[in-house]
Amino acid sequence: MSLLIKNGRIITATDDYLADILVEGEQVAAIGKELIADAEEIIDAAGMLVMPGGIDPHVHLDMPFMGTFSSDTHETGTRAALFGGTTTVIDFVLQKQGHSLREALDEWNSRARGTAVGDYSFHMAVTDFNPGTKAEIKTMVEQEGITSFKTFMAYKGALMIDDRQMTALMQEVKQQGGMVTVHATNGDVIDYLVAKNLADGNTSPLYHYLSQPEVTEAEASARFTDLANYTGCPGYIVHLTCEGALNAVRNATRRNQKVYVETCIQYLLLDASKYDMGFESAKWVMSPPLRELKDQETLWAGINQGLVNIVATDHCPFMWKQKLMGENNFSKIPNGHPAIENRMELLFSEGVNKNRITLNKYVEVACTNPAKIFGMFPRKGTIAIGSDADIIILDPKQKHTISAATHHMHVDYSAYEGWELTGKVKTVLLRGKVAIDNNECLVPKGYGQFIKRNKVSGKI
Amino acid sequence: MSLLIKNGRIITATDDYLADILVEGEQVAAIGKELIADAEEIIDAAGMLVMPGGIDPHVHLDMPFMGTFSSDTHETGTRAALFGGTTTVIDFVLQKQGHSLREALDEWNSRARGTAVGDYSFHMAVTDFNPGTKAEIKTMVEQEGITSFKTFMAYKGALMIDDRQMTALMQEVKQQGGMVTVHATNGDVIDYLVAKNLADGNTSPLYHYLSQPEVTEAEASARFTDLANYTGCPGYIVHLTCEGALNAVRNATRRNQKVYVETCIQYLLLDASKYDMGFESAKWVMSPPLRELKDQETLWAGINQGLVNIVATDHCPFMWKQKLMGENNFSKIPNGHPAIENRMELLFSEGVNKNRITLNKYVEVACTNPAKIFGMFPRKGTIAIGSDADIIILDPKQKHTISAATHHMHVDYSAYEGWELTGKVKTVLLRGKVAIDNNECLVPKGYGQFIKRNKVSGKI
Amino acid sequence: MSLLIKNGRIITATDDYLADILVEGEQVAAIGKELIADAEEIIDAAGMLVMPGGIDPHVHLDMPFMGTFSSDTHETGTRAALFGGTTTVIDFVLQKQGHSLREALDEWNSRARGTAVGDYSFHMAVTDFNPGTKAEIKTMVEQEGITSFKTFMAYKGALMIDDRQMTALMQEVKQQGGMVTVHATNGDVIDYLVAKNLADGNTSPLYHYLSQPEVTEAEASARFTDLANYTGCPGYIVHLTCEGALNAVRNATRRNQKVYVETCIQYLLLDASKYDMGFESAKWVMSPPLRELKDQETLWAGINQGLVNIVATDHCPFMWKQKLMGENNFSKIPNGHPAIENRMELLFSEGVNKNRITLNKYVEVACTNPAKIFGMFPRKGTIAIGSDADIIILDPKQKHTISAATHHMHVDYSAYEGWELTGKVKTVLLRGKVAIDNNECLVPKGYGQFIKRNKVSGKI
Amino acid sequence: MSLLIKNGRIITATDDYLADILVEGEQVAAIGKELIADAEEIIDAAGMLVMPGGIDPHVHLDMPFMGTFSSDTHETGTRAALFGGTTTVIDFVLQKQGHSLREALDEWNSRARGTAVGDYSFHMAVTDFNPGTKAEIKTMVEQEGITSFKTFMAYKGALMIDDRQMTALMQEVKQQGGMVTVHATNGDVIDYLVAKNLADGNTSPLYHYLSQPEVTEAEASARFTDLANYTGCPGYIVHLTCEGALNAVRNATRRNQKVYVETCIQYLLLDASKYDMGFESAKWVMSPPLRELKDQETLWAGINQGLVNIVATDHCPFMWKQKLMGENNFSKIPNGHPAIENRMELLFSEGVNKNRITLNKYVEVACTNPAKIFGMFPRKGTIAIGSDADIIILDPKQKHTISAATHHMHVDYSAYEGWELTGKVKTVLLRGKVAIDNNECLVPKGYGQFIKRNKVSGKI
Repeated sequence: MSLLIKNGRIITATDDYLADILVEGEQVAAIGKELIADAEEIIDAAGMLVMPGGIDPHVHLDMPFMGTFSSDTHETGTRAALFGGTTTVIDFVLQKQGHSLREALDEWNSRARGTAVGDYSFHMAVTDFNPGTKAEIKTMVEQEGITSFKTFMAYKGALMIDDRQMTALMQEVKQQGGMVTVHATNGDVIDYLVAKNLADGNTSPLYHYLSQPEVTEAEASARFTDLANYTGCPGYIVHLTCEGALNAVRNATRRNQKVYVETCIQYLLLDASKYDMGFESAKWVMSPPLRELKDQETLWAGINQGLVNIVATDHCPFMWKQKLMGENNFSKIPNGHPAIENRMELLFSEGVNKNRITLNKYVEVACTNPAKIFGMFPRKGTIAIGSDADIIILDPKQKHTISAATHHMHVDYSAYEGWELTGKVKTVLLRGKVAIDNNECLVPKGYGQFIKRNKVSGKI
Repeated sequence: MSLLIKNGRIITATDDYLADILVEGEQVAAIGKELIADAEEIIDAAGMLVMPGGIDPHVHLDMPFMGTFSSDTHETGTRAALFGGTTTVIDFVLQKQGHSLREALDEWNSRARGTAVGDYSFHMAVTDFNPGTKAEIKTMVEQEGITSFKTFMAYKGALMIDDRQMTALMQEVKQQGGMVTVHATNGDVIDYLVAKNLADGNTSPLYHYLSQPEVTEAEASARFTDLANYTGCPGYIVHLTCEGALNAVRNATRRNQKVYVETCIQYLLLDASKYDMGFESAKWVMSPPLRELKDQETLWAGINQGLVNIVATDHCPFMWKQKLMGENNFSKIPNGHPAIENRMELLFSEGVNKNRITLNKYVEVACTNPAKIFGMFPRKGTIAIGSDADIIILDPKQKHTISAATHHMHVDYSAYEGWELTGKVKTVLLRGKVAIDNNECLVPKGYGQFIKRNKVSGKI
Repeated sequence: MSLLIKNGRIITATDDYLADILVEGEQVAAIGKELIADAEEIIDAAGMLVMPGGIDPHVHLDMPFMGTFSSDTHETGTRAALFGGTTTVIDFVLQKQGHSLREALDEWNSRARGTAVGDYSFHMAVTDFNPGTKAEIKTMVEQEGITSFKTFMAYKGALMIDDRQMTALMQEVKQQGGMVTVHATNGDVIDYLVAKNLADGNTSPLYHYLSQPEVTEAEASARFTDLANYTGCPGYIVHLTCEGALNAVRNATRRNQKVYVETCIQYLLLDASKYDMGFESAKWVMSPPLRELKDQETLWAGINQGLVNIVATDHCPFMWKQKLMGENNFSKIPNGHPAIENRMELLFSEGVNKNRITLNKYVEVACTNPAKIFGMFPRKGTIAIGSDADIIILDPKQKHTISAATHHMHVDYSAYEGWELTGKVKTVLLRGKVAIDNNECLVPKGYGQFIKRNKVSGKI
Repeated sequence: MSLLIKNGRIITATDDYLADILVEGEQVAAIGKELIADAEEIIDAAGMLVMPGGIDPHVHLDMPFMGTFSSDTHETGTRAALFGGTTTVIDFVLQKQGHSLREALDEWNSRARGTAVGDYSFHMAVTDFNPGTKAEIKTMVEQEGITSFKTFMAYKGALMIDDRQMTALMQEVKQQGGMVTVHATNGDVIDYLVAKNLADGNTSPLYHYLSQPEVTEAEASARFTDLANYTGCPGYIVHLTCEGALNAVRNATRRNQKVYVETCIQYLLLDASKYDMGFESAKWVMSPPLRELKDQETLWAGINQGLVNIVATDHCPFMWKQKLMGENNFSKIPNGHPAIENRMELLFSEGVNKNRITLNKYVEVACTNPAKIFGMFPRKGTIAIGSDADIIILDPKQKHTISAATHHMHVDYSAYEGWELTGKVKTVLLRGKVAIDNNECLVPKGYGQFIKRNKVSGKI
């Protein structure tokens, strides 16, 4: 099977040039001016941007949470991702406290295998670090290709580990060649504020926001950074939202430390004014909550400063009726919002088109850095000879409007309803196959493969 | 004319893969697995690293300075650069105070045109900013393709401009789409310390070092950064050497600012202990001087943090008899050391081989960022379809020893005499032609072209 | 009863002058040049420094801890304090988890009342903050005159509260006009390191030090400061030892916050080289441990910068046989060292005589600030009309040597054995009565009074 | 001559108590409860605050500037100061470039001697540092009692010295036991912005403000602090106005440095909205200009953090017709505003009454710190035995309104016209004599003495 993409403008995290791409089987075989090849399929990409498939390293599919499940399965979620130009996602396996990592992995495998349409990998969330778990780290890294270990500094009693476990985990993960990632917010303080607000009769979504002030994230980000420095373990902060937290990372640079930072598309584009809309605000109830305009500025600047390395989604959709579980109590609103399908087009339209970031930076934060930081490079995250032919063809001029009526995520509202974007993903290749074209998905359920990942060095 | 490089491991700032490269004429035409091409010349690069030609954005060739001229001409300097894997350099045109930019450019053109062996461009050093100079900025940018304007905060009476001129220059350069670069040290304080040391009878090279303490660089870096922030002009600090100065840049990130930073190979590898060797220390008399081990650590970390963007040389060689001009007075020692030929191999052997930086980072700081930051991308700085075929083939395992006896720079000592390196540049292509092979230069004097540069946005 | 101190050089936190002091009853009645007064007792203080009695706001007397009791009772401890020029101490009442503040206060009252020789007050250590405790805060402030509430971020399971309790406590204490003080070290991390070191067979006192690295204190100090800022509660960090922790306070000043800082005399004068002496190092096993020379510099500078406000002792003596409880396990060594008697003379000899601080600063950090910050001013902490006549007369020229053989603390070793000091407390008045003279204590057991303290505003 | 002040509430930088004060001759002789003394004069101060006379260390009297003279002479200025509770001022002697310090001192002496009503001292402004000036520093310190040397980083060609002179001056002043003070704004940048604004036809007072943006002060404050640190010379920043500049001082604390900071009453109370009033804004044309509300917050916080040590005025009044010199050109408006009479009452009413600072802090920043930092302590700046009886009696409840119609400064407008204050200075003693009472000045022209000052250590 061979396929030729002709005349496109090819963008990688570094490059920007006009050429043809020859795909043979699942990989890129050649790139050149006017390639002459006997390809079975030819796509004319004149006027189009040809870029690596997006990688979203932060999604929650079919996840048991707050008494329900996130509404996208591995099938619907990865398919929607493909529609939006994201060819690989990294989902989170959640260890259950008192149980092993293996049990959790088995459970997640049972849900994802044979159902995912796009490629996927797993982070392992360590919620109970003990001698048993410790022994499993090496197996996860070496046998399962799971090299990133997620921790929660919040959600006490469910997901949170304390600093004792954190330090011990970091030492073991460093030893085994992995990375520790973190949901960095101070769970104890948040729990207090939630309880206090509820006790005071403050039950609307606004109080979700007010229960997670910037300090809770800034503090925890500093603490995590301190421990990563002490242990020497590669560290990564997920969904960083605010100036205070990014300043913690800036402070760390003074001691010659590097901590990787992910933000999410919503923190770049939406702000806390969304919490002034009565219960409709539940659509944006997520943790951390949306922040202020000054934080958006900090995050965009952070991307250009090389301090913010990745733009993900923390995709965790819930149907409106699930959100209604918290109608009388914000703490019962399932946390999360749908974005897996929108990330690439939002970032293009709002980031590239508005000159906030260059095209190369776009590919870097949405495709390449996720692959490099998490050990999938060079198989994923770039357009280069021998890499998987995960390629998107984006029409930079096409206008379209986001709507729940047309999106492919399994959720009945859109967090960006009515947003008019310029730049649309037209065609998507996954491992050499046209997965999306003409607004249709051409690969079946189960096409998605699990991607084993390599050890990481903390340098990219 | 066509040429095929087969079986190499190709490294760009992003990528790392095995493939063949087809060069047609001066550009890269195709890249692929087992490319079948009817090439006139074939190079087998099995086991080799194939990388973009290095770009050294900070060299001083045939420069009138301190009553003499730097000893490498554009011919000898760019040829030596080629031997070491650097295919393009950016030299500095120095406006003479009281004269126009044009006069200086004419003078430099008269020396470089027809003599350079490798490709080159010019920065314009603005040493006297007045209404006349102001009018020339636009011409330089739009007609001459000179888009970076160098300033000196030191060398009062010769090169230094004051903060009034700096601010005015920044506003004009920003307007015209250029960038201001800076030698950021406090000239007044240095002049005072030099005079004081000489008055006290302290005439040895050690006092060159003691007359330029870290504070003189940290202060000026902070001041430049402040003015760049105030004016909104893209800014770039050349030859940054120390923690204090890098912390100035770090502080600037808190106000969402980006200032580009260049260090030089010597500041990563050598330290101030070189000034304890009597007059032999004159070999390393340069400004700023070598610093401390803690500063080396800071600079390596800065590279990995994305804060230090370029590794250059500030190549400015002088024969030993020129250095002897300062035998009785350190302030008469011509400032500068030879490194144009050694940068790429030193950085490979000491940086990549010692796991301080990755191969991708190596290409980024030595090849790609200079091209991007200074407006030569994508013509220069990468290996991609349509880019100039400026390519080096490096044997990562070959050991060799640096020596003045064998180097090609026109200078009779080496600053790295006896250093044993692993990794040697074997073959160098410049615009599709084999310029260096088998330790021979195959292109003639005058082969080098002047590279006009584009406007810069301050984002890469 | 009246008493006249003639011809002394009187030093307060502000002033420095020669005059006579007339004491009537328990208070200072008049100060003047050649006061003519019909005093019953006259002390000639010519050539002497006449200063306010020292206040040590951090002592642990007769405290149940680690299975034993600190070896100084309220009698022996306050008497030793008087010998050293400290007329008032603030001791810590420790709530037992699961029990009320009241129970703890009753217990401490039962030990201190009628036994203390010098004046004393109590901090209330809140180790279990719940609705019951919350209700007691107001009572403590308004009825008991206990306005400072100590928290521990370490010693989990015994003394530590989590950040949830901390935040809630701060809000209540602020409401009631009190202050929250803190032992700011990350207990979870320390517990981990202790356990790990013991598991690795590292049982000597050196590992006590290595189990509490600077990061554990820097992190917790930053976290406490963040929460104090969020809640607006006046905050105070006890026994701050290191640069990292003081930098947390410095960072806080950028957001217009003021947090009070106490260091202890040992952190100014001793360093971690004490942990290289085999089990003898147990003499200096305390938490936090002694630090490095760079930290001493930071602390002295911090005093002169106004960032370090108080020099206390954390006096918590144990007999050598008690220390031996940890002979085979550093974590069983009772934490603490004896200093209550030595603080004033050590700080004078090492601080004032060595020009690190002025005489006024000496009085400020050792006498006045403790009184002001903790609500005992102007009754205590100064020499002024109407204030308690708590006065020390110090011979600035007298040399003497510290030794367990001569000290009055109930402990069989000295942490400063053999130190030769210049400057000796000759005479001490407590509430108008000569308590110490000629190296004799002239007031009986039970002379000491409990000092009720005022609400605090967080401004002095 | 003896005088008894009875029943007052006496406030010093440390103390707060009720007592009587006996003055004999020029000094305080005794303080006590119900002093029985055969005083010739008795003042009943019941219900009053009795405090040290204010010291304003930053005034410009009868100063040649911008082609005119500030409108208060040493007579009118010091008399107005007395009315407002300020008993001592420090005026600035300005060296003329090309002339000696001695010439300038002679000129100032000729204006001040025999005319001043209140006590005064001089700072020496060094505007031309050369071998001649260098030799005069020691004389100034040792013979003239002038121990503070003012520098200007702005006003090029008139007052400004460059960093070379600054460094050299600092080394000499340190050697001689003095202190260097600084007007820290970047003169070159300001000159550029002034010229640019005028060239653009922007001539109104608003452009005075816009020509001195925060960066010009922040940058210069950092630079001065760097040089003070390098040379080890005690340093003091006059009229610091903004967050950026105070952050420079905060940064310096991290390297264990102490730089003293003065702000002025106007920067605490007024903001840049004053520049939106057409030419009436000329009333507040001063350098640096008024800033923003966020800067006021920073300055109040800085006082309580111990980072801002003094509140002065930079009193430099001009008649309205003098201000009119700049009606068509803001750069011709004589810089300065009248405040010498208002400082103490403004700071009391706005600072103490509004709970921004305590009474002790009030005395500290307005009276005591100026005396200590500048070497007049303990003669001036406190109420203590042997100190000059410079005492103010302030009625904390009396309301009054500021107006040019009633003030005593020789200037025909008030910068605070119509401000209603609570707290009025009723009686003022200067060296034991009632200088102000019942709104009348009771001491004659020439009563004021020149105060020789001591060497300073940089520690207080």
